[in-house]
Amino acid sequence: MNKLAVVAFGGNALLRCDQKGTIDEQEANAYITSNQLLTLIKKDYDLVITHGNGPQVGNILLANSAGAILHGLPDMPIDVSVAYSQGFIGYVIEQQLRNVLNVNNINRDIITVVTQVLVDKDDPAFKNPTKPVGPFYSSEEAERIASETNSVFKADPRGRGFRKVVASPQPLSVFNIKTIEKLARAHEIVIAVGGGGIPVFEVDENKFQGTNAVIDKDLASALLAVGINADEFYILTDVPKACLYYNTLQPTSIDRMSVKEARQYIEEGHFADGSMRPKVKAAVYFTTQTGRDSLITCAELLGSDNEGTRITKS
Amino acid sequence: MNKLAVVAFGGNALLRCDQKGTIDEQEANAYITSNQLLTLIKKDYDLVITHGNGPQVGNILLANSAGAILHGLPDMPIDVSVAYSQGFIGYVIEQQLRNVLNVNNINRDIITVVTQVLVDKDDPAFKNPTKPVGPFYSSEEAERIASETNSVFKADPRGRGFRKVVASPQPLSVFNIKTIEKLARAHEIVIAVGGGGIPVFEVDENKFQGTNAVIDKDLASALLAVGINADEFYILTDVPKACLYYNTLQPTSIDRMSVKEARQYIEEGHFADGSMRPKVKAAVYFTTQTGRDSLITCAELLGSDNEGTRITKS
Repeated sequence: MNKLAVVAFGGNALLRCDQKGTIDEQEANAYITSNQLLTLIKKDYDLVITHGNGPQVGNILLANSAGAILHGLPDMPIDVSVAYSQGFIGYVIEQQLRNVLNVNNINRDIITVVTQVLVDKDDPAFKNPTKPVGPFYSSEEAERIASETNSVFKADPRGRGFRKVVASPQPLSVFNIKTIEKLARAHEIVIAVGGGGIPVFEVDENKFQGTNAVIDKDLASALLAVGINADEFYILTDVPKACLYYNTLQPTSIDRMSVKEARQYIEEGHFADGSMRPKVKAAVYFTTQTGRDSLITCAELLGSDNEGTRITKS
Repeated sequence: MNKLAVVAFGGNALLRCDQKGTIDEQEANAYITSNQLLTLIKKDYDLVITHGNGPQVGNILLANSAGAILHGLPDMPIDVSVAYSQGFIGYVIEQQLRNVLNVNNINRDIITVVTQVLVDKDDPAFKNPTKPVGPFYSSEEAERIASETNSVFKADPRGRGFRKVVASPQPLSVFNIKTIEKLARAHEIVIAVGGGGIPVFEVDENKFQGTNAVIDKDLASALLAVGINADEFYILTDVPKACLYYNTLQPTSIDRMSVKEARQYIEEGHFADGSMRPKVKAAVYFTTQTGRDSLITCAELLGSDNEGTRITKS
C-alpha cells in the first residue's frame, strides 16, 4: 500500500498579504505550490490536500457587506462564506495541480469535496468569540451592526477599526471522511476540509445547522489525518521552521521536538497565537493520536534534507 | 443493480424570484425539494443531483461588483462565481437532504463534488454571447465597463438597463465523471455539475483555464447522465409539464412526446428560449443517446401517476 499523506496548505499558498487577490495572482500561487507537491506525488503517495481560506473569506465578507449596502443583498453567515471559499479555492488548486500533473505526464485524477465539519453547539468558544473576520468598521457602525445582528465586535489591536469576532470551536468530526479515505486510497488526489470545514452543529438528532464560526484549519486537518489513518501529516506555512524565542533578536529554529517538548514550549508562550501555535497544537494532536511524525515546513522544503520542524512521539 | 437516476434541480428549487435570497429562505426551499426526492430515495435509486445557480450567481456577481466599487476588490470572472455557487448550493442541498434522510431514518451518505466542465475555446458561442449575467447598469456604466474589461453588454428586453452577456458554449465533457459514477453506484447521493459546471477550456494540451461563460445546466446534466449510463433522467422545473402554444390563451400540456416530435416542436418555436427549450433539448439529447426516457416535471409530481412530460425514443 502507498503511503498516505495529508498536506495542509496555508491560506497564503494562494494569496499573499502583499497581494490584492486577483484571480491571476491566486492561480499563479496555486501553480507554484502545486509544483512543490511534486516531490510527494513522484514518490506515489496517496494524498489529501487541505487548505486555509483566511484572505479569501475576508474578500468574500467584504463583497457581501458591500452588496448589502449598495444593493440590499441579504447577509450571508460565515458558514456560507466558507462554502463559497471551498468551491473557489478547491477549483483553483485542482485546476493548477492538474496543469502541473499534465506538464509532468502524471496521470492522476483530482477531486474537490465540499466538506462540513461538526462542532458542539455548547462549545465554550461560542461564549468567548476570538477570531476576527471580515471588514473593519468604525465604532459607530460596529455598534449598530452588533446590536442588529446580535454579534460581537472587538477593536483591532493595530488600530484599524472594529471587526466582528466569531467563535473558533473544536472540530469534532469531518463529514464524508470514509469517502475521502476511499478516494485517496484509490490514488485520487482529494482536496477537502477547506478553511477548516464548513462549521455545522446538531440542533437535535434530526437536524444539522450551519453556524457563524471559523474552525481552525490545522486542527481540522489533523482530525482528518488521524481519522483516515494517514502515515504522514504536513503543515505548510510561509516559514521553514517553528522557532523558540520568536519575535526576539535571537530566534532559534527547531529541527525536531517531541510532543512533550512541544507542549512545554506552547505553555512557555514560544509560538504566536493564530499563527504558529495552532500548527504546533495540530501536529501534537496528530502525533499523539497516531504515534507518527508531523512536519511543519514550507512548501519549498518538501522532500529536501532540510525538512522543517519534525514533531515526534518521543 | 439499483436504478441510477440523474435529477436536475432548477435554480428556483432554492431561490424563487419572489424571494430576496436569505439563507433561511434557501434552506427552507432546499428542505422542501429534498423531501420531494424521497419517492426516488425510498425506491433505493442510485442518485446524482445536479442544480442550477442563476439567482445565486446573480447575487454573487452583484456583491462582487459592489465590493469592487466600495473596497477596490479585484473583479472575479464568471468561472470563479460558478465555483462559489457550487460550494454554497451544494452545501445547502447536502445539509437539508441529510436532515430529510435523518427524519426518515435513512442511512445514506451525501457528497458534493466541485465540478469543472470542458468547453471548446473555438465554440462559436464565444463570438456571439447571449446569456445575461450579473447586475444591471446604465448605458454609460455599461459602455465604460465593456471597454475596460473587453466584455459585451446588451440592453435588457424589459428595459431594466444594460447587462453583461456571456457565451453559453456546448459542454464537451464532465471532469471527475468516472468517480461520480463510482460514488453513485456505491449508493452515495452525489451532488455535482452545479450551475452547469465551472467552464474551462484547454489552452494547450498541458493547460486548462477557466473562462467567462455559463454552461446550460440541463445540457451539462444530460451529458453527465449519458456518461454515467443513467437509467432515468429527470429535469425538475416550476411547472408540471412542457406545453404547446405556451404564452397563448390555449396552452396544451404535453404528457408524452418522441424525440422526433420534440425536435419538431422546438423548430416550431413552442418552447421559450432560456426556459423550456434548453430542458427539452437536454431531454432529447439524453433519450437519443441512451434510448431511455427523460422526464420534465416539477418536484411535487415525482413518483405520482401524473408524472409530467415524458420524452421517449419513438
